[in-house]
Amino acid sequence: MTSTREYLDQFANLDLGRAARSGVPEVVLAEGKTARQTVAIAQRLLERIGRVLISRVPPDTLAALQQAFADTVEWTVYSEGRTLALSQPGCAPPQTGGRVGVLTAGTSDLPVAEEAIALCIEMGCQVQHAGDVGVAGLHRLFEPLRAMLDAAVDVIIVAAGMDGALPSVVAGLVDVPVIGLPTSVGYGFGGGGVGALTSMLQTCAPGLAVVNIDNGIGAGAVAGRIANRAAAARRAYDRQAKDRGHER
Amino acid sequence: MTSTREYLDQFANLDLGRAARSGVPEVVLAEGKTARQTVAIAQRLLERIGRVLISRVPPDTLAALQQAFADTVEWTVYSEGRTLALSQPGCAPPQTGGRVGVLTAGTSDLPVAEEAIALCIEMGCQVQHAGDVGVAGLHRLFEPLRAMLDAAVDVIIVAAGMDGALPSVVAGLVDVPVIGLPTSVGYGFGGGGVGALTSMLQTCAPGLAVVNIDNGIGAGAVAGRIANRAAAARRAYDRQAKDRGHER
Amino acid sequence: MTSTREYLDQFANLDLGRAARSGVPEVVLAEGKTARQTVAIAQRLLERIGRVLISRVPPDTLAALQQAFADTVEWTVYSEGRTLALSQPGCAPPQTGGRVGVLTAGTSDLPVAEEAIALCIEMGCQVQHAGDVGVAGLHRLFEPLRAMLDAAVDVIIVAAGMDGALPSVVAGLVDVPVIGLPTSVGYGFGGGGVGALTSMLQTCAPGLAVVNIDNGIGAGAVAGRIANRAAAARRAYDRQAKDRGHER
Amino acid sequence: MTSTREYLDQFANLDLGRAARSGVPEVVLAEGKTARQTVAIAQRLLERIGRVLISRVPPDTLAALQQAFADTVEWTVYSEGRTLALSQPGCAPPQTGGRVGVLTAGTSDLPVAEEAIALCIEMGCQVQHAGDVGVAGLHRLFEPLRAMLDAAVDVIIVAAGMDGALPSVVAGLVDVPVIGLPTSVGYGFGGGGVGALTSMLQTCAPGLAVVNIDNGIGAGAVAGRIANRAAAARRAYDRQAKDRGHER
Amino acid sequence: MTSTREYLDQFANLDLGRAARSGVPEVVLAEGKTARQTVAIAQRLLERIGRVLISRVPPDTLAALQQAFADTVEWTVYSEGRTLALSQPGCAPPQTGGRVGVLTAGTSDLPVAEEAIALCIEMGCQVQHAGDVGVAGLHRLFEPLRAMLDAAVDVIIVAAGMDGALPSVVAGLVDVPVIGLPTSVGYGFGGGGVGALTSMLQTCAPGLAVVNIDNGIGAGAVAGRIANRAAAARRAYDRQAKDRGHER
Amino acid sequence: MTSTREYLDQFANLDLGRAARSGVPEVVLAEGKTARQTVAIAQRLLERIGRVLISRVPPDTLAALQQAFADTVEWTVYSEGRTLALSQPGCAPPQTGGRVGVLTAGTSDLPVAEEAIALCIEMGCQVQHAGDVGVAGLHRLFEPLRAMLDAAVDVIIVAAGMDGALPSVVAGLVDVPVIGLPTSVGYGFGGGGVGALTSMLQTCAPGLAVVNIDNGIGAGAVAGRIANRAAAARRAYDRQAKDRGHER
Amino acid sequence: MTSTREYLDQFANLDLGRAARSGVPEVVLAEGKTARQTVAIAQRLLERIGRVLISRVPPDTLAALQQAFADTVEWTVYSEGRTLALSQPGCAPPQTGGRVGVLTAGTSDLPVAEEAIALCIEMGCQVQHAGDVGVAGLHRLFEPLRAMLDAAVDVIIVAAGMDGALPSVVAGLVDVPVIGLPTSVGYGFGGGGVGALTSMLQTCAPGLAVVNIDNGIGAGAVAGRIANRAAAARRAYDRQAKDRGHER
Amino acid sequence: MTSTREYLDQFANLDLGRAARSGVPEVVLAEGKTARQTVAIAQRLLERIGRVLISRVPPDTLAALQQAFADTVEWTVYSEGRTLALSQPGCAPPQTGGRVGVLTAGTSDLPVAEEAIALCIEMGCQVQHAGDVGVAGLHRLFEPLRAMLDAAVDVIIVAAGMDGALPSVVAGLVDVPVIGLPTSVGYGFGGGGVGALTSMLQTCAPGLAVVNIDNGIGAGAVAGRIANRAAAARRAYDRQAKDRGHER
Repeated sequence: MTSTREYLDQFANLDLGRAARSGVPEVVLAEGKTARQTVAIAQRLLERIGRVLISRVPPDTLAALQQAFADTVEWTVYSEGRTLALSQPGCAPPQTGGRVGVLTAGTSDLPVAEEAIALCIEMGCQVQHAGDVGVAGLHRLFEPLRAMLDAAVDVIIVAAGMDGALPSVVAGLVDVPVIGLPTSVGYGFGGGGVGALTSMLQTCAPGLAVVNIDNGIGAGAVAGRIANRAAAARRAYDRQAKDRGHER
Repeated sequence: MTSTREYLDQFANLDLGRAARSGVPEVVLAEGKTARQTVAIAQRLLERIGRVLISRVPPDTLAALQQAFADTVEWTVYSEGRTLALSQPGCAPPQTGGRVGVLTAGTSDLPVAEEAIALCIEMGCQVQHAGDVGVAGLHRLFEPLRAMLDAAVDVIIVAAGMDGALPSVVAGLVDVPVIGLPTSVGYGFGGGGVGALTSMLQTCAPGLAVVNIDNGIGAGAVAGRIANRAAAARRAYDRQAKDRGHER
Repeated sequence: MTSTREYLDQFANLDLGRAARSGVPEVVLAEGKTARQTVAIAQRLLERIGRVLISRVPPDTLAALQQAFADTVEWTVYSEGRTLALSQPGCAPPQTGGRVGVLTAGTSDLPVAEEAIALCIEMGCQVQHAGDVGVAGLHRLFEPLRAMLDAAVDVIIVAAGMDGALPSVVAGLVDVPVIGLPTSVGYGFGGGGVGALTSMLQTCAPGLAVVNIDNGIGAGAVAGRIANRAAAARRAYDRQAKDRGHER
Repeated sequence: MTSTREYLDQFANLDLGRAARSGVPEVVLAEGKTARQTVAIAQRLLERIGRVLISRVPPDTLAALQQAFADTVEWTVYSEGRTLALSQPGCAPPQTGGRVGVLTAGTSDLPVAEEAIALCIEMGCQVQHAGDVGVAGLHRLFEPLRAMLDAAVDVIIVAAGMDGALPSVVAGLVDVPVIGLPTSVGYGFGGGGVGALTSMLQTCAPGLAVVNIDNGIGAGAVAGRIANRAAAARRAYDRQAKDRGHER
Repeated sequence: MTSTREYLDQFANLDLGRAARSGVPEVVLAEGKTARQTVAIAQRLLERIGRVLISRVPPDTLAALQQAFADTVEWTVYSEGRTLALSQPGCAPPQTGGRVGVLTAGTSDLPVAEEAIALCIEMGCQVQHAGDVGVAGLHRLFEPLRAMLDAAVDVIIVAAGMDGALPSVVAGLVDVPVIGLPTSVGYGFGGGGVGALTSMLQTCAPGLAVVNIDNGIGAGAVAGRIANRAAAARRAYDRQAKDRGHER
Repeated sequence: MTSTREYLDQFANLDLGRAARSGVPEVVLAEGKTARQTVAIAQRLLERIGRVLISRVPPDTLAALQQAFADTVEWTVYSEGRTLALSQPGCAPPQTGGRVGVLTAGTSDLPVAEEAIALCIEMGCQVQHAGDVGVAGLHRLFEPLRAMLDAAVDVIIVAAGMDGALPSVVAGLVDVPVIGLPTSVGYGFGGGGVGALTSMLQTCAPGLAVVNIDNGIGAGAVAGRIANRAAAARRAYDRQAKDRGHER
Repeated sequence: MTSTREYLDQFANLDLGRAARSGVPEVVLAEGKTARQTVAIAQRLLERIGRVLISRVPPDTLAALQQAFADTVEWTVYSEGRTLALSQPGCAPPQTGGRVGVLTAGTSDLPVAEEAIALCIEMGCQVQHAGDVGVAGLHRLFEPLRAMLDAAVDVIIVAAGMDGALPSVVAGLVDVPVIGLPTSVGYGFGGGGVGALTSMLQTCAPGLAVVNIDNGIGAGAVAGRIANRAAAARRAYDRQAKDRGHER
Repeated sequence: MTSTREYLDQFANLDLGRAARSGVPEVVLAEGKTARQTVAIAQRLLERIGRVLISRVPPDTLAALQQAFADTVEWTVYSEGRTLALSQPGCAPPQTGGRVGVLTAGTSDLPVAEEAIALCIEMGCQVQHAGDVGVAGLHRLFEPLRAMLDAAVDVIIVAAGMDGALPSVVAGLVDVPVIGLPTSVGYGFGGGGVGALTSMLQTCAPGLAVVNIDNGIGAGAVAGRIANRAAAARRAYDRQAKDRGHER
């Protein structure tokens, strides 16, 4: 045992079967990994699966990924490079027909919400987003929310920091499940998202469940599962309708 | 302003339209109300809607309700009377076809889980429950979980106290959304459900969202919304299939 | 030093000059005092000032006060006796013309809010109250809020437990100062009012300041000071207008 | 969705109507924005409203603002550039006649207090400030406090870190509303302003409400609303007096 | 091991040598002991040492002690029996000449402060106490504090709950060591004495050290040690003076 | 007292007798020491004992150690240099025959677990490690756990961050003592290892004890003591078996 | 679903195989169960296994157990009935030869420590206990600790509340593993065992692991596993020695 | 109000009379001040009082002070420049004869303890220090503690981080007052000194009071007051003795 190399080799075995088993693809958390490690893992996933989603990308890792893959893969860049989806040509994610709405209270909530957006897209869902609709100016909320309901979203993710009041307001107005996504926006007592999380857990509105502070990936995973569950039933309906059309 | 009576009259306006608007019926929280107040509210809801769900019923309120309604309504009793569903004859909840699975880690988690079960039933869902499947004896988990997946549940509520490890284990094994329901079981540091809540928020498994400690009603509301969303698509399918049968 | 009697005698010196100095009358906190102590203090204040406000009255103290004063003083009873204002005949509080609005999110917030209401009345303000306007059903908020603005209140106290979202919503809609009054409603993580307090401190709306959980007296004192400050300027105006009328 | 640009465009819609609606102008929080973003927002507000208040300005943003606006606008610089008020020539804030007192316990509390001072000035109030009057040397408090009362301030903001004792002492001595502004001064247990906040929430003096730690903008907004409420009544008086003068 | 009796016998070995070794007599904490246990321990200490100090006496234990010792020992009763000093006739505590001042902010702080007073008296000190001098009415503080300094106390214990501001104010005014004694007075955030403790730890005044919430015995022990240390030097002086007188 | 030098000299007296007395060698915590200090201490321990274990080595200290000792001692490097074991040639640690199993939930838990591994090796134990066996993919756990039991380990250290669920699962499956080692992996509420620690303390499985977050040295020390205790009995058996062989 | 009865039947399946699988017998936690439930479970375990350990027995459950089993089983009573071991005649626990030491800091720590003692005895270990050896009088510790080491205990459980300092002192003096058992003794900040737990987790002594506050059963389970692991090796030695004796 | 300069001028008024009033000289906290500010304040204090104590000196401030004062004042340097005492030639602090003992558990506690040492020296006390006497090796404590008692110290400051157990052990062994000084040593749960503070507040030994984490100045101030109180009595004795000698 003269080095850690032999340990590292046996680690980070990519869970290539996860998407099939759990409906959620493995996400590479770049934070806490060296740029070289992230590039290597991305390489392997691109080879074997054709796509990779990378979150919390530090600037130097972004540069290393750009150098490694710039011309050869397709890039979807979220939040100025903080979240990345890379794919081999022709390897677009499957379209499930799941429909996810995403609301953000303020501009600072966007990078976290985009983790959720990116994962839902990887899971095959359509995502509809509206921002800057926090409770300090409630009149801005109603129009985008109505549009979302018109589009018949299956679930709404509501990202908010500070007072975390928006998810409760939304859950009181709609009849689809709402996923509260507290963000680490805010300072002082209850800062760093603690106030937002607490407020969402204490909601007096029905139909709201939450994930941890800044856990956009977690919110996306649960929303994607919810939407894909409903979408599967709709696809059955559509197949039936199509068969019926053919029959005639 | 010589008494609080005039205030009380204008309060507790029953939100009779809530079920239509939000998909979740109003639940009467008996804790913190006098027995007489709860009886009166139940009376009014039974008259106007035909059904009422009452949670956290103290013993004296249970007695008062039994005296008031014993012969005239149908009773569904959960957790030795802690949760009650009363209904006028012929006022069964609608059957939506939503399917909810509920897992409980230990016996003490049952009363909280039954709040969720009762609300899901009120929301028209079918509920499948399995208990005593905590991580201290994992071998007991696999059989009931398989049965739940065979029954194609749309969502699984997992209630656990103490270490709160069960929801993470379950979310790693299935591909439907999982709602973690921490219960106030456990003492010492992280007792009263704080450890369970924290563990669920920190989950390393995808597809898990949580509600607050002991908030069985909250877990039921979000699970019911999820299941009913999928069920609506299935009902469309069924109606189409039926039409198609008629057509031929 | 053979007993504590000699200590007690030198204590609880009533601060009879407080109202003059601070604009806020001394309030007798009955909780933590024996019934006999509270009766004695009330007796002395009634003799010297003519009025007394007593808060957090335990049932046995209420009974003792009723026995001591039933026929001889005027009673204003709040929250079924939890807060009491007693006065000698002819000793009504002065009318300052200050105007205070009070909103409560749920029925359980009322006893705390009534502490604030009672103190504001003792300070000479007019109080306008509306209840059951929490964010789970926002549509109920707008009508009473408009009425309050029409009445030109100088300040609005907003009492809320659980998610504590209402004060932020209100502060985003009005241009008068808002005092957030968190109440110890709610259980689980952030229960006992901690979530409500945190949410209010983290508000993203302008013009909201808070007092501690269940501190209705504190909310009333600061709101009363605010309203009376504006009212003093209005009274100067009125005196001037009257003089002017006389002049002509 | 190949970049975040399309999201950003729809965001940060300046709430140009806020001042009219809420009596509080929108404040640009520079912290967490790039220098370029802050310059762009300031540009737009200067064009449309003529003034802009910018808080928590990082050094590089200060430099960028100086380069962008140095010769063309009027600068008011607080706390060595941490807070800035910029205005087009001739766009001074309106004078409402509201009067705000500000007390700071120690030198380190000044930058936070200056956020409040700057916002009150933007809201049209006159501000009177006295510093270094903490409870470790109480004799320094009395003279400036008397001067403030002589000037008939409508409200006093008291900023303090560490033990946070000063606001309670002040609220016990005056009869105007007091806004406690805890600052993140102090280390160890209760450090970072938690001790100061806790102490202010636990005050045993009447007439004190608080905002969150380091939330100078929040303290300024509520104090400005209080002072402007009283000032509006005084202006009515003054108009009446003037009319009366004209009449004669 | 068929019962716990054999364990109990070997326990609660009275530390009869403690006073000699540590300068602080053993105090019997009655809370958590049965009445019979407390009576038995008191019995043994009265026999062997002649005196016993008993704290946190529950009502039934008080009754049992009265029955056991009523006529045979001398009683000093503090806080209506919550703290008791019993002694055999002729067994008064030694007079060391140590001088301890005790200040209490409010009436509710008295029972805790009396634990400290009782222990200091057992340790042979003279105790001077003044109450109801909290910061909400600072003008009441100065007179008793001056009297205490005139009496040349060696140390001042300052008991306060809620905002805990009084010890900081006192430590800024005197030059003797101050012991802060936070009491569990106050509710809401920082209630139960946490706010008071935090405020005292964050003091910006020099010369203040603290003990835990409600730990009157701890405050008394450290104050008694401080006073007796100074008193020992004074007794040496007095002996010398006396010798000198004899010499002449 | 013109410098701190004279203090420093009397400090950091190496506890050369610790290994004999406590069974655990002194570990040099490099964090918080200058590179020069760590080199000097390592020098002295290498001279007197022949071996030294250094933990939490900062990069500059690693460089300084490499310069000081590169050619002259034997290096065992863990976690890319974060933990180091240096030894004089011929000074291998004694082989006790103690057997320790180590499981890690994720890659990020490895550096902390390697502190434990390194210390157990210094204490003479054999260590068997398996990684990446967290509860999000339970199927990966069973094979390595079976191998560990086949190897008859005396104790298992289980390192996990985030939800900290793995130690509970393991303790429910084996009959040897389990030491939970929470790691500071995870963000948001319960982040930094607090959730993992809490979950382990709240375990519902028997036979699990824990050490503090990231305290790999502490986990190694207790596991080494456990394993060496069992190994001592086995060595007695072996000596007896050998004697018996000789006898015949 | 008209009652909870059908749920209860499928619950509380006694894990009869646990002792074989995990080396720790199932313990019946009477707290939170009705007296009738506990009697029924005890009945079943006595029938199938011959022994049962019951912890946290409320007074009414104790009475019910006495009525149900008084004459027919053997009783071992700990802590005046708080913990009970019942056994059929002839069903003594197996003697493994494991040796466990237990130290308690104060009398109040005993009931919790007795849970550990009782479980270790059920697991077949010999237990040696010494009490009242807290750090306030360290001289009382050394004699019983020496006796414990002379008896060659395999592990020492150290139970302490308040400052929790004793386990660190002990772990610094011995070379066997130490299990810290914090108890909920102590009030004020860090009261209820939090201070003791924190202090043990922060230990600067090697070889100490901890369980949660008041978790005597948990401490017993891990200590029993440790001792039985060493004892198994000793029994192998003894069998060998015996064979050898027979051989000769 | 175009700059903050006019504010700064009125601030930081040096409290030149503090030493006379409170017995504690003003200490310049360099942390949070610019190097230039600290130099200027030091300059003024050296001119008016002849001495200055500066704490928490950042490296650049140290360099600036060295440049400003290198040849002209006398330097006493603690903790490699973290704490500094500067004095004009001939301005040594007065010798009061107060005697303070200081114990430190580990090397890392020294910089904090040296703040206390430096302040006690400024207050005229003699200081006796012993280090590296933590509870992990208790045998190292007894010799230096005996020396301290032989020297008849008036008070002992005990600095400790991590488990904070040392002050309780010391307070149980001596009869002088003990001041616990928790240091921010230690990581994980209870890290940063919280565990040490908690443990000290929960002490089961008599005669211990505490200051906040890392508050060496606070510990020095209270210890200096204690020691100087006793020393004043001794000086009276000495003066008397001297007079007596003269008389003869």
